[in-house]
Amino acid sequence: MSNVSKTGKLYGVGVGPGDPELMTLKALRVLKDAPVIAAPKSSNIDADSNALEIIKGSIGVEGKVILELGLPMTKDRAVLKAGRDKAAAELAGMLEKGLDVAFITLGDPMLYSTFSYLVPLVRERLPHARVEAVAGVTSFCAAASAAMLPLAEGSESVAIEPCAYKLEDVRRALKTSDTVILLKVNKALDGIIKLLEEESLLNNAVFVSRASCSDAEIVTDLKTLKGRDAGYFSLIIVKKGSI
Amino acid sequence: MSNVSKTGKLYGVGVGPGDPELMTLKALRVLKDAPVIAAPKSSNIDADSNALEIIKGSIGVEGKVILELGLPMTKDRAVLKAGRDKAAAELAGMLEKGLDVAFITLGDPMLYSTFSYLVPLVRERLPHARVEAVAGVTSFCAAASAAMLPLAEGSESVAIEPCAYKLEDVRRALKTSDTVILLKVNKALDGIIKLLEEESLLNNAVFVSRASCSDAEIVTDLKTLKGRDAGYFSLIIVKKGSI
Repeated sequence: MSNVSKTGKLYGVGVGPGDPELMTLKALRVLKDAPVIAAPKSSNIDADSNALEIIKGSIGVEGKVILELGLPMTKDRAVLKAGRDKAAAELAGMLEKGLDVAFITLGDPMLYSTFSYLVPLVRERLPHARVEAVAGVTSFCAAASAAMLPLAEGSESVAIEPCAYKLEDVRRALKTSDTVILLKVNKALDGIIKLLEEESLLNNAVFVSRASCSDAEIVTDLKTLKGRDAGYFSLIIVKKGSI
Repeated sequence: MSNVSKTGKLYGVGVGPGDPELMTLKALRVLKDAPVIAAPKSSNIDADSNALEIIKGSIGVEGKVILELGLPMTKDRAVLKAGRDKAAAELAGMLEKGLDVAFITLGDPMLYSTFSYLVPLVRERLPHARVEAVAGVTSFCAAASAAMLPLAEGSESVAIEPCAYKLEDVRRALKTSDTVILLKVNKALDGIIKLLEEESLLNNAVFVSRASCSDAEIVTDLKTLKGRDAGYFSLIIVKKGSI
């Protein structure tokens, strides 16, 4: 037990959708107290450095260890696994030194976050590691507030489709749910617009990019988006009821 | 335009799932600044007084107007409409006096919140009213963090079913989504358990009640819940993949 108590605690901290004011009080406290801030760093998107930018204005990072974890964005499973194993080993190394580590993640740590992949790998190395997740505001809640568009009321159901480029999954979700939230729309904007036209839902959709950030964008006429690179932080909310 | 600028601003403030520390910095600021705090108050659940309890520990409410809005929980449409119209008139009255109003809501103001019903009714009375929603942490994100159960990773889809007592909707969602979040499970716990058994998903489900509160409860053996009144703030997360 003595080793356990000396081991640091790993926190997965949701820092919210972008606006530093949408961090929770708990996130702020944990980030202020933790001697180590870990942030995923992938090669081809700016998502992760973003999480670090969000917190830098709110907490003093001087004197803290900033542990940037190289996590490749690739479909090559061997490369992915090697990256995650290395990241987990680095986290475990800090915890073994008795240091608490706050792993920051955009949005919420339990929804499409790297944190949830890493926890089991850290526990392989430190079975007794204490781990706590600090829930955060999701991108789609921030988008709905920005567009003043209720996601669901009463008995309405909601579907979250993380790969909007899988158009048949999107079509199925549109048939079975009252509201559909499409993530990663940047990869398939023209296809989504065509699909929404086919389903007569083009006027029931709102595009939101970088909700809560100073450069947020809300587009209700989706046809104007055709041919655009919408960026990583964009999503589309489709409501089958009136909008 | 002069009337517009004199009119107060209506905020829908998500105060999160229960733990006052899961309020956002923005929620705290808006609540501290607003001279009027409006809270829905329904007759037969403790949900609304809860929202008021959450904030009372964090902001000084002395000197503020606390506007408790009687909003009946009923299926009688006429009674519902009368209650909402009265609430909207009370909100509009405060705004017309030039007072900013912070309407507090558990979780997020755009997901199953009374706020989204009231905004159009307020705008009927004050077409130029400025309205802003402040996104909050949802109950299901808090539940997932409490249970350390990732809601979704990678390409997994999520369905939110707000009426877990509509068992055929639940069955359909279980077939089409990787993760299903069942709200209002207290009304149909035995039926849900039976359904999950039929679908061979009983061991893939976690029950969470009052996540993030001091009396939070996490139950992984759902059979032990049979015959129980699970309470208003309980939900079940079902993951078709390993749990």
